[in-house]
Amino acid sequence: MYRPQIKVVDCTIRDGGLMNDWHFPKAMVKDVFHGLAEAGVDYVEMGYRVDKKLFSPKEFGPWRFCDEKDLREVAYECDTKVSVMCDVGRTDYDAFLPASESIVKLFRVATYVKDIDKAIHLIHHIKALGYMVTCNIMAVSTNLEPDLDEALDQLAKTDVDVVYLVDSFGYFYSEQIHYLAMKYHERLPGKELGIHCHDNQRLAFANTIEGIIKNINFVDGSIYGMGRGGGNCTTELLLAFLKNPKFELGPVLALAEKYFIDLKRDLKWGYELPFMLTGNLNKHPRPALAHVRSSLNGETRSIVDFYNELLDVDDAV
Amino acid sequence: MYRPQIKVVDCTIRDGGLMNDWHFPKAMVKDVFHGLAEAGVDYVEMGYRVDKKLFSPKEFGPWRFCDEKDLREVAYECDTKVSVMCDVGRTDYDAFLPASESIVKLFRVATYVKDIDKAIHLIHHIKALGYMVTCNIMAVSTNLEPDLDEALDQLAKTDVDVVYLVDSFGYFYSEQIHYLAMKYHERLPGKELGIHCHDNQRLAFANTIEGIIKNINFVDGSIYGMGRGGGNCTTELLLAFLKNPKFELGPVLALAEKYFIDLKRDLKWGYELPFMLTGNLNKHPRPALAHVRSSLNGETRSIVDFYNELLDVDDAV
Repeated sequence: MYRPQIKVVDCTIRDGGLMNDWHFPKAMVKDVFHGLAEAGVDYVEMGYRVDKKLFSPKEFGPWRFCDEKDLREVAYECDTKVSVMCDVGRTDYDAFLPASESIVKLFRVATYVKDIDKAIHLIHHIKALGYMVTCNIMAVSTNLEPDLDEALDQLAKTDVDVVYLVDSFGYFYSEQIHYLAMKYHERLPGKELGIHCHDNQRLAFANTIEGIIKNINFVDGSIYGMGRGGGNCTTELLLAFLKNPKFELGPVLALAEKYFIDLKRDLKWGYELPFMLTGNLNKHPRPALAHVRSSLNGETRSIVDFYNELLDVDDAV
Repeated sequence: MYRPQIKVVDCTIRDGGLMNDWHFPKAMVKDVFHGLAEAGVDYVEMGYRVDKKLFSPKEFGPWRFCDEKDLREVAYECDTKVSVMCDVGRTDYDAFLPASESIVKLFRVATYVKDIDKAIHLIHHIKALGYMVTCNIMAVSTNLEPDLDEALDQLAKTDVDVVYLVDSFGYFYSEQIHYLAMKYHERLPGKELGIHCHDNQRLAFANTIEGIIKNINFVDGSIYGMGRGGGNCTTELLLAFLKNPKFELGPVLALAEKYFIDLKRDLKWGYELPFMLTGNLNKHPRPALAHVRSSLNGETRSIVDFYNELLDVDDAV
């Protein structure tokens, strides 16, 4: 039995781009979109749309910006819809076409709780252009609950389509997912919820399942887990778990084998000890990324030293 | 808050040996035992004790046999106790000293449901020598429930100390763990339960936590997840999650870095697509192991072909 309301959102290129500055070749991204469409995935997130005044196209690949013409080179209109993420504070309000002229069907607005008013402003702007819009509240594992509650109450009064529970640091386990899913449902009556998990502690798939059990319908995955630091719930695990007959696992396996196994060996997202430690300690993966990158460059610094330094940061507060 | 009844059983050498035929150097195993003792792990499983008439010491490393003298070279008596596993049908009944003369404090009897009478016979033999004994019922994801129920009812009448819920194929997710944990508790009143999970679908740690939530007190892990196929719940994740102040994470991180990151690169346990697929399809990892080993030897066979062959096997029944 399956719940037809469940939608799979693949964010390989968007979240994975955080590991390679979105330098994915167009032919590869085209292959990814076509394969995910063949697999029956509901939404494919092709990248961010950030303000070119803030980030240079010379430095970053095209999926940092998701220009309409670049998207149309790699994607086509079909049951698998194009999604793009916008960061609060990094978005050019003039960079959106009316929805009827765009290949994009979903914009996801990423925000921290402290910026929820800015997020709502941006959501209204994009909704007014005719798009479906989600609000992805990042790093809620670090918020005081009254602040999170207030943000949810504000969102409840908007016409945002979906609100995401996001475990940015890969910190949560099942009981925390249950607790927060109940809170989101209570404070956002009638709204669809989504879940986006990071795999620092190898809990991303399990936590996504826990979200599904708690009636969350928008579930994020990425091929072979490609994503920042600990990576994401893998799209192949999601499709293998969900029972909707429209899903085909084969095309995702083929993409993983063609591109992502090698990329993972080179870029090292996933279960690396530094990411496990920042996840377990509820910290931003930044120092772990620096540790892993310095290891890739041949520097040797022991994991125990890294761990002790993470703990020392706390001591110094 | 922590539950003092929770005991961590590290089975790196025992389950990991399934990936390298137990060819771990003695100096390394000594290092592993000492590090795990420093970390406060409750039991360290040093290998199997199999009948030398069935398996040749020329072919397998010493941890396939766990002779008393080999164990005493690498371990010492302390709060961290030595565990050894025995397979039903592969055990020489004469290979056990009385408990008072042995460094081993725990024997774990591994069995399939169909061999439960043989298992109980072996359990009685080892218990009579003065040891603590567990029964680890393997591959219960493949059993008809009345058969499992009968096996549990039989075990309830024995003096076995702990009965393990074992997810040999890495198939279960949380709701199935809950269901089986309730069943084991109901049918084994007053017995301690244990849980041993495989990580084919990246659910081993999550399922172990679900077991803990359902009052399972013996939890298995291995350093960096080293174990057959999809590997195990990692000992470092367990120690980072559990709150008992006696646990120290540092020594396990140091062991992972010194030995197991390189071993994993060479032997490839863990989240490899072939293991994910056998786990998802509730199958023995044997064909996946063959696929991964042939890839390591430079053979190329696509993962989609492998997947289709796994599905074809079903068609042929």
